[in-house]
Amino acid sequence: MEALARQSHKLCPYFKHSSAQAIRAIDGSSLSAQAVRCPVMGPALESKRSYVSSSKPAKAQVATAEVEETDFYPVEHASNEASFDYQGLFESEVVKKRDDNSYRFFNNINRLAKQFPMAHRAVEEDKVTVWCSNDYLAMSKNEQVIDVMAKALQKYGAGAGGTRNIAGHNKHAINLESELAALHKKEAALVFSSCYVANDAVLSLLGQKMKDLVIFSDEMNHASMIVGIQHSKAKKEIFKHNDLQDLEERLAKYPKSTPKVIAFESVYSMSGSVSDIPKICDLAEKYGCITFLDEVHAVGLYGPHGAGVAEHYDFEAHRASGIRSPDFKTTLDRVDIITGTLGKSFGTVGGYVAANRAIVDWLRSYSPGFIFTTSLPPAVMAGAAEAIRYQRSYLKDRQLQQIHTTYVKDQLEAIGVPVMPNPSHIVPIVVGDAAKAKAASDLLMNKHKIYVQAINFPTVPRGTERLRITPTPGHHQELSDILIEAVEDVYKTLDLPRISDLEARGGLCNVGVEGYVPETNLWTEQQLSYTQEDLNKNVFNPIIEQLEVSSGVKA
Amino acid sequence: MEALARQSHKLCPYFKHSSAQAIRAIDGSSLSAQAVRCPVMGPALESKRSYVSSSKPAKAQVATAEVEETDFYPVEHASNEASFDYQGLFESEVVKKRDDNSYRFFNNINRLAKQFPMAHRAVEEDKVTVWCSNDYLAMSKNEQVIDVMAKALQKYGAGAGGTRNIAGHNKHAINLESELAALHKKEAALVFSSCYVANDAVLSLLGQKMKDLVIFSDEMNHASMIVGIQHSKAKKEIFKHNDLQDLEERLAKYPKSTPKVIAFESVYSMSGSVSDIPKICDLAEKYGCITFLDEVHAVGLYGPHGAGVAEHYDFEAHRASGIRSPDFKTTLDRVDIITGTLGKSFGTVGGYVAANRAIVDWLRSYSPGFIFTTSLPPAVMAGAAEAIRYQRSYLKDRQLQQIHTTYVKDQLEAIGVPVMPNPSHIVPIVVGDAAKAKAASDLLMNKHKIYVQAINFPTVPRGTERLRITPTPGHHQELSDILIEAVEDVYKTLDLPRISDLEARGGLCNVGVEGYVPETNLWTEQQLSYTQEDLNKNVFNPIIEQLEVSSGVKA
Repeated sequence: MEALARQSHKLCPYFKHSSAQAIRAIDGSSLSAQAVRCPVMGPALESKRSYVSSSKPAKAQVATAEVEETDFYPVEHASNEASFDYQGLFESEVVKKRDDNSYRFFNNINRLAKQFPMAHRAVEEDKVTVWCSNDYLAMSKNEQVIDVMAKALQKYGAGAGGTRNIAGHNKHAINLESELAALHKKEAALVFSSCYVANDAVLSLLGQKMKDLVIFSDEMNHASMIVGIQHSKAKKEIFKHNDLQDLEERLAKYPKSTPKVIAFESVYSMSGSVSDIPKICDLAEKYGCITFLDEVHAVGLYGPHGAGVAEHYDFEAHRASGIRSPDFKTTLDRVDIITGTLGKSFGTVGGYVAANRAIVDWLRSYSPGFIFTTSLPPAVMAGAAEAIRYQRSYLKDRQLQQIHTTYVKDQLEAIGVPVMPNPSHIVPIVVGDAAKAKAASDLLMNKHKIYVQAINFPTVPRGTERLRITPTPGHHQELSDILIEAVEDVYKTLDLPRISDLEARGGLCNVGVEGYVPETNLWTEQQLSYTQEDLNKNVFNPIIEQLEVSSGVKA
Repeated sequence: MEALARQSHKLCPYFKHSSAQAIRAIDGSSLSAQAVRCPVMGPALESKRSYVSSSKPAKAQVATAEVEETDFYPVEHASNEASFDYQGLFESEVVKKRDDNSYRFFNNINRLAKQFPMAHRAVEEDKVTVWCSNDYLAMSKNEQVIDVMAKALQKYGAGAGGTRNIAGHNKHAINLESELAALHKKEAALVFSSCYVANDAVLSLLGQKMKDLVIFSDEMNHASMIVGIQHSKAKKEIFKHNDLQDLEERLAKYPKSTPKVIAFESVYSMSGSVSDIPKICDLAEKYGCITFLDEVHAVGLYGPHGAGVAEHYDFEAHRASGIRSPDFKTTLDRVDIITGTLGKSFGTVGGYVAANRAIVDWLRSYSPGFIFTTSLPPAVMAGAAEAIRYQRSYLKDRQLQQIHTTYVKDQLEAIGVPVMPNPSHIVPIVVGDAAKAKAASDLLMNKHKIYVQAINFPTVPRGTERLRITPTPGHHQELSDILIEAVEDVYKTLDLPRISDLEARGGLCNVGVEGYVPETNLWTEQQLSYTQEDLNKNVFNPIIEQLEVSSGVKA
């Protein structure tokens, strides 16, 4: 093993950048097995096999050396005692990632605004079609958005120059927060660097400020919510994904007077599953909870004004009432705290919270993640506000997105590719193996010039690795047909599991499960049939000045 | 009190938006005292004093009502039991902020790129001079930066469209991280949404992954580091600000083999104090620590290439060696992990870490705050990279910044205004009272059209409230003279403490302390005398492709 390591050091492009400690930390047996299969090391090892086998048992040799040098050196405060092996730790942790195929190689993808959905790779001529971006509505290339941003950039400069309290508060922040409050029909909104930061900030502050808080968290919640709940130090109850019975059983364990938050998402991004917001609100009312809803993967895409799934539940009522609230308590009204992003359907970057005035002012006053950070650039905030306005009064993008999604799902299923069933805009196809998912992604990219990222651990559980396809309004039928053909080729070439294979295994990720009844789409036929003209009749014309006052941001 | 609250509800623009619970939570005696001084409530109260005094003792009355309604309702799982009073909590917490003068009113400041350092307030004609932005080098209005951003915006769109792993990695990220690695002469760098996120992410991961880690943290460290250390769950040792003896005593308590991180800043933003990086590195070596240095308020401003204070220590050697490292171990080399921002001297937004390849790859692979968030927009990354390149090869901005700083400090001291002594570019003037600091800021703004934000708790400790002035290359002598005159007027009008007053009190924030010897400026006369031509002779011409490979980002 020692000799193998020494030899690798010279030959292997990865090993030669690693320290001796990191290499020692590798399990010798797994290394040898893998090295034989390596295109660089394999042949080299073959020719030198006699040399390797003649060397002494490596493990013992290394261990002895380490005992002498570091490991059991008497622990006392002596300046010539060895330090902790920091470098070894960093390197061996990365080696683990390589060993279990969860090491990530980032693809250099330069999405071209004027050739959407095309991107170039490292070389400008090397173009690929992007099929996995979260720019769901193609707003990052929307001319109105870019135009507003270009003007703000020229007039107000590159950056905000300070925190919101110190020189970084401006009309762009005020307008954006007003737009967000109006979108979600809440009294106020607050913008953060990202929705990762917003989720972390809100959940952690809730726990830190409410003694005895219990947070009820869907097991599939996003990393940012999991981290926020950890930071909250609140007691947590993790309920089974979208399982209302499990949630209720957990809620029923606590007195009604105990402070409780139910934290969940509307659209779960990696499976496309959707929560039942009204029923969760029913439980919240029954057991005295407040509701925290992450609409990150839903804003822009659902509801007559793009406010998300909570708005979609009362589609007709919201469509008719425009900027005003309908005259009954809607699902949107029942959710206490909504978080969302500006970085997906709204095409820019940043996150936010929308809630009543008291909650927002409390967050604004106490949350370190809001207080101690530089504001987003004026151009970014102006662009995000424009994207929200645009999508609020333009239905066609999200209708087209849905129509393209249905087409892709149907065509993939027709060729036996296992699409995870869901009622939303996400098209996850199951592979179930990290190395194969990466191989599929690489083959799509290199042979077919199609970019669909493989989704591996920690983003999804091991064994459920997948490709995640995200159609947009720009992914028309012609592009879809090219995609379907490429996926068919990849599935054939790599012998990936089809629906029938998963059926034979008893199912995976709800594919091939006997008796499984898929949910109906969130978007109904009726909703998809509205023309833009129909909608425009009922759409409000927002008056920003009025919003600023009503949202409470302009105190 | 009950009657007073009821009356306030009708008259007071703040109260009428508060719930009854929040109002009940206010301490009655302090409210009455404050209400008399209120311009709206005062006269109203005067005319109705007889009515108020005839009401029953308010506290007792309210308390009784609450007992009946909620507080001691039998705790059991009953659906008609009262829920926790969430709204009351949010509102009463904000009331506390108002009561102790730490409630924040954000100023609407729209900094105008073409009229730097001017900004307009809500109305475009209402112009003010900004004297407190962290856009220290005015890079947010730099034409080269704006031009690069405008082009990237048009070509690559408004947003990145995904996380770094899913469609959000591109040449702008690669270039920016290469520039950052080269700037700090480290093997690699990693960009985060903000340096708040970077500090939190790095420190928390260190503690989570290193068993028994002890983090030694300067007591004046930024909130993001404090939060990161909390999240790390590591044992923490908080040492007195810049006190190397206290630090060493704490280090000496642990065996050398115990993993340890010393976390500190180069320039502490609210006082302008500067740490002794070489001596802290000496201690780190002696006791087997790694060093974590936040250069957020120093990058761009110190060192021949703007890499920060760590580079400034070996000014001549770095100046001579350009992109290469000098042939000895510099202070920059000795620091293991450097974090910095793109949102201050580099004029845009975002944060980063620079370190060796193993550390960066480890962070890239394990840090949720990096993995699970949308990348910065291409235009932002392109602009930040351009700002770094510009400042790396152009010395004059930071020289001018220093010259303006010295002028402002000298002139303020000449009129007896208490400038906190420091060797850096920050000009903090002590007020020592939250309400007075806000009044001073308001008077500067409303009377003199000068914006200097009051810095109150939690950004600085109570009793050390201050105004924080930040000259830039654009704040020339003429503007400074106008500022000095305005500050003199404000100090006279509000009777704020002068140096002599603080002397009489025994000193505050190192002002008026007998025998206090101020440190010499980081920038020497010699360094300030270099002309741009002198520097250009030695400045490298970065070849991006080469950097990409050498930085290890392009693996």
